[in-house]
Amino acid sequence: MNRFIKCGLALAVLVAPAVAQADDQDVMNYRKQVMKTMGEQAAAMNMTLQGKAPAEQFVSHVRTLHLASTQALKAFEPKVVGDGSTGSAKQEVWANWADFSKRMNEQVAKLAALEKAAMEGGAAKAGPMIQTTMDCRSCHENYRVPKK
Amino acid sequence: MNRFIKCGLALAVLVAPAVAQADDQDVMNYRKQVMKTMGEQAAAMNMTLQGKAPAEQFVSHVRTLHLASTQALKAFEPKVVGDGSTGSAKQEVWANWADFSKRMNEQVAKLAALEKAAMEGGAAKAGPMIQTTMDCRSCHENYRVPKK
Repeated sequence: MNRFIKCGLALAVLVAPAVAQADDQDVMNYRKQVMKTMGEQAAAMNMTLQGKAPAEQFVSHVRTLHLASTQALKAFEPKVVGDGSTGSAKQEVWANWADFSKRMNEQVAKLAALEKAAMEGGAAKAGPMIQTTMDCRSCHENYRVPKK
Repeated sequence: MNRFIKCGLALAVLVAPAVAQADDQDVMNYRKQVMKTMGEQAAAMNMTLQGKAPAEQFVSHVRTLHLASTQALKAFEPKVVGDGSTGSAKQEVWANWADFSKRMNEQVAKLAALEKAAMEGGAAKAGPMIQTTMDCRSCHENYRVPKK
């Protein structure tokens, strides 16, 4: 979906009341939007620490990443197995839901702590926490169709 | 950049101190991360209003979108004209910087008002404001290489 269409959707909302039901494609699209947000904001956050993007944006990226992480678990609740493309969700997400949701909730809690540190002391305080905070692989290795 | 690498970057931060300088590719990558975040969160927000994603996530998407909008202007400050690919920035961004930055700041202000309404009254209060809030075209039509 290109960005023009995404913006256009906002305008369509008022003429198309919320009567639609989420179909499988909607569920997958929504998940990808949330997970891509996390990937992009994590990358942007890292760039601010590496001197490749404005350092003063660090806190904003941490806050955005934390917010997006709170959206993620909900996005996986509907049991719609990915379409098999790289990056899509495996059926193990739902077969091992207790483990998956535990990991997701732990990630949210770690990012909440990172945000708190970032708000209090910026990158000086929060930067050293990142290595133990960003545990993407913990889920991606088990629950995501590998990227090629 | 795939998501695995993005996550890996977090780990690299601690062993690679922030001595790097942002090169042109960094500047463009950073911008794309921020603008894609806005596109994805806008789309996700709209899905919550259309019944295609959980309604209770509406406020979170509005907040994330507002935060990302505050990152955007800063991402365009370095004068690095896009690489000409669809979606990249035109040189008009910097030729008309006063106009461009005015529009960007207006977008941030509108999203701040949307967030306030969403926090106070959820989609019932903020939903009707979206049509006048999301003014993506105002910049995209003039300042972005058209999407094919």
